[in-house]
Amino acid sequence: MTKVGVVLSGCGVYDGAEIHEAVLTLLALDRAGAQALCMAPDVPQRHVVDHRTGKPTGETRNVLTESARIARGDIRDLAEVHAKDLDALIFPGGFGAAKNLCDFAEKGSDATVNPEVSRLVREMLAAKKPIAAVCIAPAMLAAVCRDAGIHAKVTIGDDPGTAKNVEGLGATHLACLVDEFRVDEEHRLITSPAYMKAGSIREAAVGIERTVAELLRMAG
Amino acid sequence: MTKVGVVLSGCGVYDGAEIHEAVLTLLALDRAGAQALCMAPDVPQRHVVDHRTGKPTGETRNVLTESARIARGDIRDLAEVHAKDLDALIFPGGFGAAKNLCDFAEKGSDATVNPEVSRLVREMLAAKKPIAAVCIAPAMLAAVCRDAGIHAKVTIGDDPGTAKNVEGLGATHLACLVDEFRVDEEHRLITSPAYMKAGSIREAAVGIERTVAELLRMAG
Repeated sequence: MTKVGVVLSGCGVYDGAEIHEAVLTLLALDRAGAQALCMAPDVPQRHVVDHRTGKPTGETRNVLTESARIARGDIRDLAEVHAKDLDALIFPGGFGAAKNLCDFAEKGSDATVNPEVSRLVREMLAAKKPIAAVCIAPAMLAAVCRDAGIHAKVTIGDDPGTAKNVEGLGATHLACLVDEFRVDEEHRLITSPAYMKAGSIREAAVGIERTVAELLRMAG
Repeated sequence: MTKVGVVLSGCGVYDGAEIHEAVLTLLALDRAGAQALCMAPDVPQRHVVDHRTGKPTGETRNVLTESARIARGDIRDLAEVHAKDLDALIFPGGFGAAKNLCDFAEKGSDATVNPEVSRLVREMLAAKKPIAAVCIAPAMLAAVCRDAGIHAKVTIGDDPGTAKNVEGLGATHLACLVDEFRVDEEHRLITSPAYMKAGSIREAAVGIERTVAELLRMAG
């Protein structure tokens, strides 16, 4: 059974993992007969956003604790997971990927990455195990690759400012339709825009299903 | 376009709406070309549960605010929604349905229902518009029907104690396989066990897809 790490970044599009993308990822993995291992870093969220108003609330919440909601409690501290435990890795999107896994949302092309997230991605790159990322999460991948001296090729969606910031991280931005994915063959990276372009959950689902299928194909 | 109300009860299986069931419901509705209108009552959660430990945290959160995470912000206060706005109604499960929409989790066959939830369900019953509920949510339907003098027939899963409490509400408990649904034709209720029996998201998805398809068929 192929073991796929699913890295969550909280629970909710504006301050954590995008819930639809995370659940669609788990569904696609389960339907393909793969085993999902959910994980998240044990760190405070950048902030907590009221999803009705879009404004910060002043609360404090923990990324691992909130991510456990999506995983129905079955979740690991990312710091305890290593590439040897996995055949592949995938990052759903949501602003949590750009606020909690790294600080791309705030710092753009000067983004830094959570040390344990960076460590796990580098281990996967070194082991030549495939990594997928959707929505805004490819920006985090680009930042890890920059730190590792790697020139990554990733999707990020249509927004020119976001694409420019991804290129500022030393990556090449690849245009991609919402229901497709793009592959950086050299570094075994698979990326797709999901809700960076999707207008509905149905649209997001197609791109994620295809991304997961390619990830599993590359994992062998 | 068929308009289907999706009643959420928070965000997380142990204190709110079951996230997978809610997302699978939204996916099935969108794929069928129906319009989902997410809503939740604007009330405090019964409690907040740490989904890693299963224990209450002492925090306070609002059901509508947390439900907005699943709806990506596009959500209505249930108190402002009426049966005339909808062609059908569906309740995903999660303990929130039995803690925040009613108090079945605590009081069993003495359960009382949130007044606005009860009002909307009664409006739908009176208008003969179909209502679906999965997982533990049929217990809430049974309680509303008891209050309305209606003998409902619903699924609840395999647990004998839970089934006994549902029958204590004056309903008939219907056995049902995880990938099927049962219909109370007289009252136009469609119910299915979802995670009351499902061992994986794939299993939950099949029953929910079939439940949604039947709901839309009955909505015409």
